[in-house]
Amino acid sequence: MDAAEFRKRGKEMVDYIADYLEKIDKRQVFPDVEPGYLRPLIPDCAPQDPESFEDVFKDIEKIIMPGVTHWHSPYFFAYFPAASSFPALLADMLCGGIGCVGFSWAASPACTELETVMLDWLGKMINLPEEFLAGKDGRGGGVIQGSASEATLISLLAARTKTIRRMQSEKPELTEADIMGRLVAYASDQFCATLGTTPCCSFDKLVELGPICTKENIWMHIDAAYAGSAFICPEFRHLLNGVEFADSFNFNPHKWLLVNFDCSAMWVKKRSDLTGAFKLEPLYLQHHHQESGLVTDYRHWQIPLGRRFRSLKLWFVLRMYGVTGLQEHIRKHVRLSHQFEHLVLQDERFELCAEVVLGLVCFRLKGSNDLNKALLESINEAKKIHLVPCHLREKFVLRFAICSRTVESTHVKFAWQHISQLATDLLKTWEQNQHQQ
Amino acid sequence: MDAAEFRKRGKEMVDYIADYLEKIDKRQVFPDVEPGYLRPLIPDCAPQDPESFEDVFKDIEKIIMPGVTHWHSPYFFAYFPAASSFPALLADMLCGGIGCVGFSWAASPACTELETVMLDWLGKMINLPEEFLAGKDGRGGGVIQGSASEATLISLLAARTKTIRRMQSEKPELTEADIMGRLVAYASDQFCATLGTTPCCSFDKLVELGPICTKENIWMHIDAAYAGSAFICPEFRHLLNGVEFADSFNFNPHKWLLVNFDCSAMWVKKRSDLTGAFKLEPLYLQHHHQESGLVTDYRHWQIPLGRRFRSLKLWFVLRMYGVTGLQEHIRKHVRLSHQFEHLVLQDERFELCAEVVLGLVCFRLKGSNDLNKALLESINEAKKIHLVPCHLREKFVLRFAICSRTVESTHVKFAWQHISQLATDLLKTWEQNQHQQ
Repeated sequence: MDAAEFRKRGKEMVDYIADYLEKIDKRQVFPDVEPGYLRPLIPDCAPQDPESFEDVFKDIEKIIMPGVTHWHSPYFFAYFPAASSFPALLADMLCGGIGCVGFSWAASPACTELETVMLDWLGKMINLPEEFLAGKDGRGGGVIQGSASEATLISLLAARTKTIRRMQSEKPELTEADIMGRLVAYASDQFCATLGTTPCCSFDKLVELGPICTKENIWMHIDAAYAGSAFICPEFRHLLNGVEFADSFNFNPHKWLLVNFDCSAMWVKKRSDLTGAFKLEPLYLQHHHQESGLVTDYRHWQIPLGRRFRSLKLWFVLRMYGVTGLQEHIRKHVRLSHQFEHLVLQDERFELCAEVVLGLVCFRLKGSNDLNKALLESINEAKKIHLVPCHLREKFVLRFAICSRTVESTHVKFAWQHISQLATDLLKTWEQNQHQQ
Repeated sequence: MDAAEFRKRGKEMVDYIADYLEKIDKRQVFPDVEPGYLRPLIPDCAPQDPESFEDVFKDIEKIIMPGVTHWHSPYFFAYFPAASSFPALLADMLCGGIGCVGFSWAASPACTELETVMLDWLGKMINLPEEFLAGKDGRGGGVIQGSASEATLISLLAARTKTIRRMQSEKPELTEADIMGRLVAYASDQFCATLGTTPCCSFDKLVELGPICTKENIWMHIDAAYAGSAFICPEFRHLLNGVEFADSFNFNPHKWLLVNFDCSAMWVKKRSDLTGAFKLEPLYLQHHHQESGLVTDYRHWQIPLGRRFRSLKLWFVLRMYGVTGLQEHIRKHVRLSHQFEHLVLQDERFELCAEVVLGLVCFRLKGSNDLNKALLESINEAKKIHLVPCHLREKFVLRFAICSRTVESTHVKFAWQHISQLATDLLKTWEQNQHQQ
C-alpha cells in the first residue's frame, strides 16, 4: 500500500469509525460468541502473498465485530469508562504517522517537551501542589505511563531503591538482601492509598494517612485511576486534599477525561527518586544535552524503553474541549449516576450499597447473594445493557457505572426499567421456587 | 467535535499524514531546537474554553514539527528501525475507534482471540517450536507486550516466582526473603540471552547456553527485539537455533516487521508459569467462561491491567504484505547494509568493527576515539543524516542502521559520500592540529 492508496483507505476507515460510533447504540452491547469462535473463521497461518485492503476490510464486520464488547455503547455500564473522543482519535492518528520513539530528549524533543508541559497543564487543572509540577526548573514533574498498574509498580520500585540506599548508608554492614527481607509495603485490600476504588469508588483519607507516612518515612503513592479526572471540577477537588503528603500521584485520563487508552498521568515530587532507580545510560542513548540538566529523558521514568507521542492526545483533548467542556462531561456523568441512584431508592425491593460520590452506583436486591447473582445473570444474558458485579463485605453487589461519552438520561431510564422488569420476573420465579422447596 | 466534523477532520488528518510520509525526505532529519524550546511557544495552562480544530491543526507545523526527529526519513540511520506502514496505521485507527480494553476474554472476546491466533501465525512464520504455540489446546502461547523490557521483566518475575515456589516445596523452612537473597540471574552485559544486541547486532549461542540452563533448572529468556523479524526469512532462521531450550522468547514486530509501536511479541512454553505469577481475580473481572479452561485472560500475562486491540495491526500487516512482502522488506534492508559495508571496506581510512549479519554496520575511522567522536559530531551537526554511536570493547564506534521503510540504495550511497567527505574535511583539520601541537 502506497501513500495514494492510504489516502483513499484512510478516509474509508474514518467513515467506518464515524459510522461505528454514530450507530453503536444499534449494536448488541455484549457479543453472542462462545470461547474459541474466531480461530475457525480465519486461516491457520499467514498468507504467503498479499491480500487486498478490501479482503481485510470486509472481515472486520464478519470476524471482528461479532466478538466485540462495545465499550462505547450508551448501554455499557460495566467496569469503569474507557475514554474515547474524536479529538483523541485524531491525535492518535498523528502520533502513529509521526511514529517517533521518544525514549530520550534527542530521540524527538517535541515528544518529551510537550509531555512535560501537558502534565503541568493537567496538574494545574486538578490543583496539584506546585512541587509536583516541572515548570522551568522544578524538582518534580509528570510523565505519561501506560497504566495505573505501571505507575504503582514504578513507585514501589523507586521507594524500594530509595529505602535500601538510606538503610545502606545508615548501616553499611547490611546487604541488599538483608534489607529487602525486612521491607514492608503497607496497603489495604485495594493496595496503596486509593481515591475511587474499583468495586465501589470509595476514598482513603489522605489527611489521616499522610502525616503517618511523613513521620515514618514511608513513600506514599496515591492511585486515583478513575476518580482523578473529577478533580478538575472545584466541587470534587476536596477529595484530593492531603495529596501534599504524597511522594507520587497517578490518575488515568484514559478512563474519564476523554483521552483514549493509553494515557495514565503520574507525578512525582522528586524526579531524582525515579531517575535514581531506573537510570540507564548506554552510549547509543546519550546525547550532548543530557549533561546540561535542562532536559528530561523519560526512559528513566518508566519500565519500557520505547514510548509513543501520547501527549498529543492530551493536547488535542484539553484544547478542543477546554476545561469547561471536560467539566461538563464529568458533571453529566455524576448527574446520571445520581439519577440512577434516585431510581433505585424509589424501589423498595432494592438497596444502595455505597455512597454515590461520582459516576458509580452500587446496588442490589434486598435478599441473598444468590438472588443477586441470578439478577445479574439475567441482565447480562438479555444483553440489552452490560454490568459487572463486585463484593462489598461479603455481599454480592451490582455495579452501575456511567461509562459512555454519549450516554444520556434516556439510556439510564431505559436501563433501570429493564433491570426493574427483570427483577420482577426473577422474583416471581424465585418465590415460586422457594415455595416449592 | 461530533461524528460529522470527525469525518471531515479525520480525512484532513489522513492527507496530512500521507503528505508527511511522502515528503519526509525533504525535512531535515534531526531538529534544530534547543532544550526548553517548546514551553515558551504555548500557554502555561489549558484553555478554559474550547479551541477549534484549525487552531490546533496549524500548531502541528508551528510547534510540533520543528522539534521532531524524523524516524521514518530515509536519512535516519540511528538506533534501530521503528516500524511504520500504512496497513498498520489503518489498523491502529480501527483499534482506537473500537476502543475496547481487553483485560479479560469477556471484556472483548475478539481482542483476546485474534491476539492468540496472530501470535500463532507469527510463531509459525519464524518456525518456533510447536510448544510455544497456543493452538486449540496447547500449554504455551503468545501475547503482545508493550516492549521487550516488559517481556524481560515478566520473564524475570515469573522465573523468580517459579523458583521460589520450587525451593519452598523442597525446603519449607526457608522464608521467601531467605530464598530471594540467594537467587541469581545470569546475564552478559547485554542482559539475558540476546539475538541481535543493540550496539552491534551480535548473537548469543543458544545451542551452548540452552543445555546449561536445562541442566541447572535456569529459566532461559531470549530477547531478539530487533533481529527476530529476520527469522521469517529461511536464510536467517538458523540464528534462532536453540530456541527449543528457552522458556520464553520475545521479539518486536514494532521494530522491523512494519507494525507500528507498540507490538512486542512474547511466547512462553508454559502459560501457567505466567498466570501462576500474576493471576488476579477480583469479582468485577470474573466471567462465567473463565472456569472452563477454554479462554485466555491476558491480564494474567502482563504488568498492566488494561490493553488495546493491538493484534489488529498484526492482522492487517501480515495479510496486506503477505509473508513474501515482509521477507522482501527484511532482505532489502540487509542488502542495503551490505552495500554500506562494501563502501566502508573500499575506503582504507575506515575499518569495520563487527560482522554485518542483518541491517546494522558498525564502523569507524582508523585512529583514536576522539577522532571518531569528532566525525560523529560533524555528521550529526550537518543534520543531513542521523547516526548514533556505541562502545565496542573500549572503542568508540559509529552505528549505521538501515531504518526507514522507504530507504533505497541512493540514500545509502548519499550517506556514504557525505560521511566520506566529512571525514576528509575532518582529517585535514585534525592533522593540522596534530602538527601544530
